[in-house]
Amino acid sequence: MRAVTIHGPKDIRVEHVPDAAIREPGDVVVRVTHACICGSDLWAYRGVVERQPGQRIGHEFLGVVEEVGAEVSRLRRGDRVVAPFVWSDGTCERCAAGLHTSCRQVGSWGQPGADGGQGEAVRVPFAEATLVRLPADVDEAQLPALLTLSDVLCTGHHGALAAGVAPGGSVAVVGDGAVGLCAVMAAARLGAERIVLLGHHRDRTRLAERFGATEVRLGPGAEVVAELRELTRGEGFHSVVEAVGTVESMRTAIGVTADGGTVGFVGVPHGGEQALDIRQMFYRNVAVRGGIAPARAYIPELLPDVLSGALDPAPIFDATIGLDEAADGYADMDARRTLKAMIRL
Amino acid sequence: MRAVTIHGPKDIRVEHVPDAAIREPGDVVVRVTHACICGSDLWAYRGVVERQPGQRIGHEFLGVVEEVGAEVSRLRRGDRVVAPFVWSDGTCERCAAGLHTSCRQVGSWGQPGADGGQGEAVRVPFAEATLVRLPADVDEAQLPALLTLSDVLCTGHHGALAAGVAPGGSVAVVGDGAVGLCAVMAAARLGAERIVLLGHHRDRTRLAERFGATEVRLGPGAEVVAELRELTRGEGFHSVVEAVGTVESMRTAIGVTADGGTVGFVGVPHGGEQALDIRQMFYRNVAVRGGIAPARAYIPELLPDVLSGALDPAPIFDATIGLDEAADGYADMDARRTLKAMIRL
Repeated sequence: MRAVTIHGPKDIRVEHVPDAAIREPGDVVVRVTHACICGSDLWAYRGVVERQPGQRIGHEFLGVVEEVGAEVSRLRRGDRVVAPFVWSDGTCERCAAGLHTSCRQVGSWGQPGADGGQGEAVRVPFAEATLVRLPADVDEAQLPALLTLSDVLCTGHHGALAAGVAPGGSVAVVGDGAVGLCAVMAAARLGAERIVLLGHHRDRTRLAERFGATEVRLGPGAEVVAELRELTRGEGFHSVVEAVGTVESMRTAIGVTADGGTVGFVGVPHGGEQALDIRQMFYRNVAVRGGIAPARAYIPELLPDVLSGALDPAPIFDATIGLDEAADGYADMDARRTLKAMIRL
Repeated sequence: MRAVTIHGPKDIRVEHVPDAAIREPGDVVVRVTHACICGSDLWAYRGVVERQPGQRIGHEFLGVVEEVGAEVSRLRRGDRVVAPFVWSDGTCERCAAGLHTSCRQVGSWGQPGADGGQGEAVRVPFAEATLVRLPADVDEAQLPALLTLSDVLCTGHHGALAAGVAPGGSVAVVGDGAVGLCAVMAAARLGAERIVLLGHHRDRTRLAERFGATEVRLGPGAEVVAELRELTRGEGFHSVVEAVGTVESMRTAIGVTADGGTVGFVGVPHGGEQALDIRQMFYRNVAVRGGIAPARAYIPELLPDVLSGALDPAPIFDATIGLDEAADGYADMDARRTLKAMIRL
């Protein structure tokens, strides 16, 4: 089969790799119909995080069950499924607590030895626990929206929950990438009345407005902190979602948080510990919580809203490419010519 | 009047200073009967944080109202009162939200231009909002316990609340200073079933057991992290109170926190931002919240339990000295010969 591989910074290839195959009786093989490129894949693309040369990549996918292991009874060939961005056993105490990303047997697509989401097929361990089946009669047109359940919509939701977004509340979202935009949508769903998005790109902030942002601001961190605080008469926001992962974005997030407020952080941290100003957290009682989103825990809750059309994050995909165009897809996202590329197979 | 002043590292003096006096119509003057030395005063004593030469010091006190300003009607000469460790106006939105430490007009005892708690008398701004009156018939023997409402008991309570301590829960407390010991007591009051204190001094951990710790462990951070995790079959604690403020103690606190758990931090941070391992926070969903405790918000809740004897933190005072012995009191605490010194006036 063919799959996307990464050989070094800016070296994305599509290669022939061994076919995805059942190894354990709890496995299934999913034929991928929709995958996408994540902002976090770009850290590997840029060489900020290392990958083994030739390692698979991609962790968001949706497809059709093609083969099932001997112990799999709740999934059948032909089922349409969406995969959260890590697999989990569904039986340990952490899965039971809804923290599937800390599962005792967690693993992620594209890690050495595992298939990546950007490829023709994926072997899925702990398949019954990991995959979520979509309705048999699902409208094909909804599949891009449903693909976001794999990561970005759930991650945005996690950020909003971690930030303590509540009905009638005010929230600032730092970052206009796909996760930031999904956090806007999640905050609106949770009933936030005022949602301010801080971004860099006018076309993305326009999308944020479609998704529920009541105000948008553009600009680099330091100056915008004062501007955002002014919006709240100096008070700051009680809920802030950090959806980038850089030192600057975290500093901005803490800077615009009200005393006693909470930063829900979901941007994969890059840039080190100096992002967290512990003295400011202490003297202003600013909490920082969040992290990698247990998407598997959220898919059942968010799925009905995507199916009903109440949530439609599909517009985050501003490019649709074939598998062979993966390298261009990465280059375009890296150069910010596109927000997020969907790969159709 | 006489008051304690600090002139530089390890240079504590008792000097004649201008009498505390009414300046604003909302002020009162409190004649101090009980004060104490705080672990956080030692940061100034050690020269880690700077003070102006001759600056006052001390922020915990209890006493008797001696003089009232023209606009003060709810406090009278002769009232016995306890002061939280900062003053606050009681009218701004932050005070209304219970975050008095972020009051728009906040200030702290001993700041330049203000009387310190370690002195014969203190001018108290916003006196009606700041001070809490004790019952007229309060037993003198209870005054040491009531003095802890000024800071350490409320700070321990804040840490336990921030860590999300709940009935039946498990909590680890990092630090066997007065705040850590009070956090143990507060956690027990909140219904925690398992309370593990991590300390350095056997005599202090014995006190922790009196205060409600179910287990104690001694030792430096790195080794003890593994030991504490073993106590929970590797899981870690869902609630952890950080009650020291050093890089090592925060690392220990995060290290013993379960995935998805929360560090409630109340140790005044010293040592910089590298204390917060953002990658560990991210990949394990460990939250960090807390900060400077809004003691004024907690005194009304904790006061009845101190008066009833349900909470008796008085044993944290293992030395009682006169004002003239302040320098020795600091030296003894600095050398860990005493846990916490009470100053009787």
